[in-house]
Amino acid sequence: MEKLVLHEYAPSGNCYKIRLVAAHLGLALERRGYDILKGETRTSEFLRDVNANGRIPVLQIGDRFLPESAAACFYLAEGSSLIPEDRFDCADMLRWMNFEQYNHEPNIATLRFWLAFVGEDGLTGMQKSLMLDKRAGGEAALDLMDEHLRNRLYFVRDRFSLADIALYAYTHVAGDGGFDLSLWPAVQRWLERVSSLPEHIPIDE
Amino acid sequence: MEKLVLHEYAPSGNCYKIRLVAAHLGLALERRGYDILKGETRTSEFLRDVNANGRIPVLQIGDRFLPESAAACFYLAEGSSLIPEDRFDCADMLRWMNFEQYNHEPNIATLRFWLAFVGEDGLTGMQKSLMLDKRAGGEAALDLMDEHLRNRLYFVRDRFSLADIALYAYTHVAGDGGFDLSLWPAVQRWLERVSSLPEHIPIDE
Repeated sequence: MEKLVLHEYAPSGNCYKIRLVAAHLGLALERRGYDILKGETRTSEFLRDVNANGRIPVLQIGDRFLPESAAACFYLAEGSSLIPEDRFDCADMLRWMNFEQYNHEPNIATLRFWLAFVGEDGLTGMQKSLMLDKRAGGEAALDLMDEHLRNRLYFVRDRFSLADIALYAYTHVAGDGGFDLSLWPAVQRWLERVSSLPEHIPIDE
Repeated sequence: MEKLVLHEYAPSGNCYKIRLVAAHLGLALERRGYDILKGETRTSEFLRDVNANGRIPVLQIGDRFLPESAAACFYLAEGSSLIPEDRFDCADMLRWMNFEQYNHEPNIATLRFWLAFVGEDGLTGMQKSLMLDKRAGGEAALDLMDEHLRNRLYFVRDRFSLADIALYAYTHVAGDGGFDLSLWPAVQRWLERVSSLPEHIPIDE
């Protein structure tokens, strides 16, 4: 495989997903950090050379750039056991990855960012007024995950896949956003299952 | 292939994407409609039998249910020319599909739904206060698309793929949400290119 460079903000769960996939596959990633709190992904150089959308993560593969964490995870994992071979199961994995980006991350990751990184005093009035909605949306996502995991080991057909990695990233730090994970016991057991896998790495490594 | 049933709200662009993929592949879809304005996807039957997340579209394949439009499109298109064979190109297609669900749909589709389906008088105070942010987010998404399409026929390697279908669905009706598409000429040319393909069907068919 060509040289892999991860353009990232290390505490971001979206960036952690890609590091976690690489760890499970034994792939080496060079890491290049940008401080999003200082606007380092909105500079003209970043927009021109890395991602016109001004966001991290971006996976650089040789001289090509791939934004969006789900796309980068899929690229790295192609042909591995992290993507189910079965046609329905592969689509079902994408279903959970899309659920994560649409129903989970905009609520749980955003509250974590606002409360643990920006700080409540630094929020705009609009952000403060959205907090209740995001709290309810995050709880609904965790409810759905808990119900799904009650009789399952992993999200898709009881085998560890990209769906678990995508959902693990922001769920295991949901406490930073004020979510009390003890309310979702099946989710908690699944988090322990994922973090006990031999190739697992923590978010701050 | 097993019998395919699309659980849908027909005017939804997310549901249209799946019909458009099926049309391009010549697949028959049985359609079952739910009026989301009347809460028909939040009934206990729907939550139990179709999707615990209370959302459409859901693609039913035999007796299995697949929520999330991107997952359903991927399932239908597997092995077809709508998914590039090249590893990078396939991931790049997923990149644009994720961009659509994260940066495009929550702004452009939401404004369309609020303005053309709910109506401005029916909006909550919170929804009204979010309109400016969503307008700016939608314009930024269209700017990025226009820049990307300026020297390209389609989103990924100049070949029509699921990325084009995913982005076409809500872009071509962005006018319903108050976006003036004449401001994005490369997007307009691409919309005409997509709608001129021989297998194309309109959203209201």
